[in-house]
Amino acid sequence: MRLKEIAEKVGGQVVGDGDLEINSAAPIDEACPGQITFVANPRYASRLKDTKASAVIVSPDLDIKKESGRSFLIAANPYLTFARTMSLLYPRRRGEPGVSPSAYVSPGAVMGKDVVIHPLVFVGKGAVIGDRVELYPGVHIGDGCTIGEDTLIYANASVYSRCRIGKRVIIHSGVVIGSDGFGFAQDGKRHVKIPQEGIVEIEDDVEIGANTTIDRATMGKTLIKRGTKIDNLVQIAHNVVIGEDCLIIAQVGIAGSTKIGNNVILAGQVGVVGHLNIGDNVMVGAQSGVGHDVPPNNAVSGSPAFPHREWLKAVVAFQFLPDMRRRLAALERKIEEMLKEKKE
Amino acid sequence: MRLKEIAEKVGGQVVGDGDLEINSAAPIDEACPGQITFVANPRYASRLKDTKASAVIVSPDLDIKKESGRSFLIAANPYLTFARTMSLLYPRRRGEPGVSPSAYVSPGAVMGKDVVIHPLVFVGKGAVIGDRVELYPGVHIGDGCTIGEDTLIYANASVYSRCRIGKRVIIHSGVVIGSDGFGFAQDGKRHVKIPQEGIVEIEDDVEIGANTTIDRATMGKTLIKRGTKIDNLVQIAHNVVIGEDCLIIAQVGIAGSTKIGNNVILAGQVGVVGHLNIGDNVMVGAQSGVGHDVPPNNAVSGSPAFPHREWLKAVVAFQFLPDMRRRLAALERKIEEMLKEKKE
Amino acid sequence: MRLKEIAEKVGGQVVGDGDLEINSAAPIDEACPGQITFVANPRYASRLKDTKASAVIVSPDLDIKKESGRSFLIAANPYLTFARTMSLLYPRRRGEPGVSPSAYVSPGAVMGKDVVIHPLVFVGKGAVIGDRVELYPGVHIGDGCTIGEDTLIYANASVYSRCRIGKRVIIHSGVVIGSDGFGFAQDGKRHVKIPQEGIVEIEDDVEIGANTTIDRATMGKTLIKRGTKIDNLVQIAHNVVIGEDCLIIAQVGIAGSTKIGNNVILAGQVGVVGHLNIGDNVMVGAQSGVGHDVPPNNAVSGSPAFPHREWLKAVVAFQFLPDMRRRLAALERKIEEMLKEKKE
Repeated sequence: MRLKEIAEKVGGQVVGDGDLEINSAAPIDEACPGQITFVANPRYASRLKDTKASAVIVSPDLDIKKESGRSFLIAANPYLTFARTMSLLYPRRRGEPGVSPSAYVSPGAVMGKDVVIHPLVFVGKGAVIGDRVELYPGVHIGDGCTIGEDTLIYANASVYSRCRIGKRVIIHSGVVIGSDGFGFAQDGKRHVKIPQEGIVEIEDDVEIGANTTIDRATMGKTLIKRGTKIDNLVQIAHNVVIGEDCLIIAQVGIAGSTKIGNNVILAGQVGVVGHLNIGDNVMVGAQSGVGHDVPPNNAVSGSPAFPHREWLKAVVAFQFLPDMRRRLAALERKIEEMLKEKKE
Repeated sequence: MRLKEIAEKVGGQVVGDGDLEINSAAPIDEACPGQITFVANPRYASRLKDTKASAVIVSPDLDIKKESGRSFLIAANPYLTFARTMSLLYPRRRGEPGVSPSAYVSPGAVMGKDVVIHPLVFVGKGAVIGDRVELYPGVHIGDGCTIGEDTLIYANASVYSRCRIGKRVIIHSGVVIGSDGFGFAQDGKRHVKIPQEGIVEIEDDVEIGANTTIDRATMGKTLIKRGTKIDNLVQIAHNVVIGEDCLIIAQVGIAGSTKIGNNVILAGQVGVVGHLNIGDNVMVGAQSGVGHDVPPNNAVSGSPAFPHREWLKAVVAFQFLPDMRRRLAALERKIEEMLKEKKE
Repeated sequence: MRLKEIAEKVGGQVVGDGDLEINSAAPIDEACPGQITFVANPRYASRLKDTKASAVIVSPDLDIKKESGRSFLIAANPYLTFARTMSLLYPRRRGEPGVSPSAYVSPGAVMGKDVVIHPLVFVGKGAVIGDRVELYPGVHIGDGCTIGEDTLIYANASVYSRCRIGKRVIIHSGVVIGSDGFGFAQDGKRHVKIPQEGIVEIEDDVEIGANTTIDRATMGKTLIKRGTKIDNLVQIAHNVVIGEDCLIIAQVGIAGSTKIGNNVILAGQVGVVGHLNIGDNVMVGAQSGVGHDVPPNNAVSGSPAFPHREWLKAVVAFQFLPDMRRRLAALERKIEEMLKEKKE
């Protein structure tokens, strides 16, 4: 694809040779002739002079010199423009439309147009599979599920009965959606299971990372709203609600019935206690443990978590704790002496 | 089902219309006419007046006014009674008994009465599947496993060879039972694998959450005792023993050979070092790291963990650490001045 | 197998009856006649006198008395010698060579000699499966993957397209290799997916624990080098490089583009931030959070992590923090009084 065609489709202004043929993309220090790369962070601008890439996506702020054989695509947000260029150069590869005779489709399941159902897939009774959905081998779609148009589910993911998956959702291998919430009543000695009769609903444009688990609600639904992206090995308990456009990084755990707002970022290995409200635009630092509600537009860190700026100071002081302890004891001795001297 | 029939079966005393027809259950603020709900926590009693539920399970302590069209089921433990009511209203839906011709059952496997073996299941040589066991699609039962009566294993769970699963066990999707323990000897330069020749044994009435992993013993067995409930994404290493009626919350990790007593609660994301003894009735707070034995009937928190009450005070003080550091330096200066003045 | 044959194959010197028939191995306190056991830790030497094992692997330092009916295998590293003895007594049990007619092998896939392809396996187009590879039921090998000789992949593991797995690799159930890295650009409001076009490469002799996830690179490759052993439920993000002979314990998470040296040990539940360099021979304590580069040959702990020795002192001091806070306030009062008295 020519550089000027890319510019037309993803936006940005060509400086240099618009007829340049671009066949693929690469990181700046691995790129070869014929490839496009990008500089999003001005810190890496110095690498520009050594790259072998034919074209580079850069911001208008960058002081580019027209070097021989190098062309540029100037874009306000080079990283975003690079993302769009990648999508252009590497369109999703879909399987051949059709239902493999080696898949098992239960009676009463409804298939949309141009679905790709690979071998060894299981689709339950009454499930409704939208147009152009692709299900990889080993995927399990329980009875009565609905899967929206253009959704893609990778190998060996499992969706329990009656769950609802939106459009253009991407679900990675090993994901489990709709397993029973962890709910038990005590009869004094033993744990009595509370049947988990709700569902999971995943809205449009959500992506769910490998081996993540999302439990069904006790009653009602566990809900992941539009555009939220969830990384690998995340645990989302029953009746949790996650807002729109959140980023939930790997190995986060969210306990039951907690409500999370829009545009929230939970960094890796964060834990959130149950029945909390986390406001819009909240950021939680890695490995933090959130034990109380967090109002909108706050950043918190630590376990238990408190305001991020204060936490930064506290963890610095923490390293000096043995020193502080020693100094405190020394002061106590000094004062003791001073008081003794005074008495004498 | 009529309210008085429910009362007969789950216990409790009807106040109001025992002939009321109850078809399902719902949370108090979502319930509709025809539904039953509950108030377990007196804090939520105020929601009683607004609920549209036809019947409410409440404790005898609650001051109920007979409102028009509202009936009550009075029970000592409303949450437990609600759990039992749920089980009554939503009996487990089993598949059609039989072995699907799309499943693969190895020669020499033994099937009990009324088993439900869904399509795409694999059962290994010499495996023994108990009466009324249900195996969902993609389940893998290794050679020589035994699966007890009425056990339910959801899609894409894997049980390695020779493991033993008890009766009425529930295993969720993606669970792995019997993978090799992480055991290596050093030959000075490389890690030499120690064959893991033991098994995993799961006793009766255990539930295991989605994508949890339980490693087989090096020799002997990794053992999960009766009635213990394990949440999602938990890691249980080789030769661990977990007692009866424990609650192991999501993303906990227990290292090799640790023994855990009965009625222990490990909250979310806890880590327990190997070769420890954790006594009966111990509670470990979320995200804690247990590095030493814990005697019975103790609550510990923190990483590394110490008594929960002291930890609560320490984490409060932690937030004041920068302030303490500043005050300590100020005191040092003051005393320095006082000592200087005295000399002069 | 006779004890002297074992000694010939694994090394070490027999003291006692070399013709002794050994049929299996067991822990020292569970062993029966006919079994071999070991004492690696001198602390457990006292158990020697009570064991029923016929033979014991011990170090030359150990003061053994020739007891009636007990034989010894003297070895410099008893644990390593035990590992090798286990491998001898318990050779890997392979399935019958052949491709099950219940597996689905895509056109253009290439099968090596003596492969074991169990029922319900999926092999994609153009995949190359090396000699003696064994794939358990439910394994998914994507299009264009290469799997090296003697590699073993357990049930329901998934390898996405184009990934490369080395020789003698062991991959446990539920592992996901090659899922999309978590990469999004912001368009101001929404997260725009960056196609993940790289691969995962796993070198020879790596072992990967159950339900671990390893994401494919955005461009280029995520790389796990020779001999590294990874435990269960570990998360390895896109473009990470892990060196040779590392031990990555359960539930560790490593964020994108971080480079880890050789012989590194990351203990359980550690988190490592992205774009870091962790040097050779580094050790990171359990539950630590590594936020900065770590030079070679260092041990760090804590979240955020700092030198392990200082961390050990800081966590001791942490428990005294409430006490320190009280003492600090008392000192402040005393000095205030002293200053007041002086003025008067």
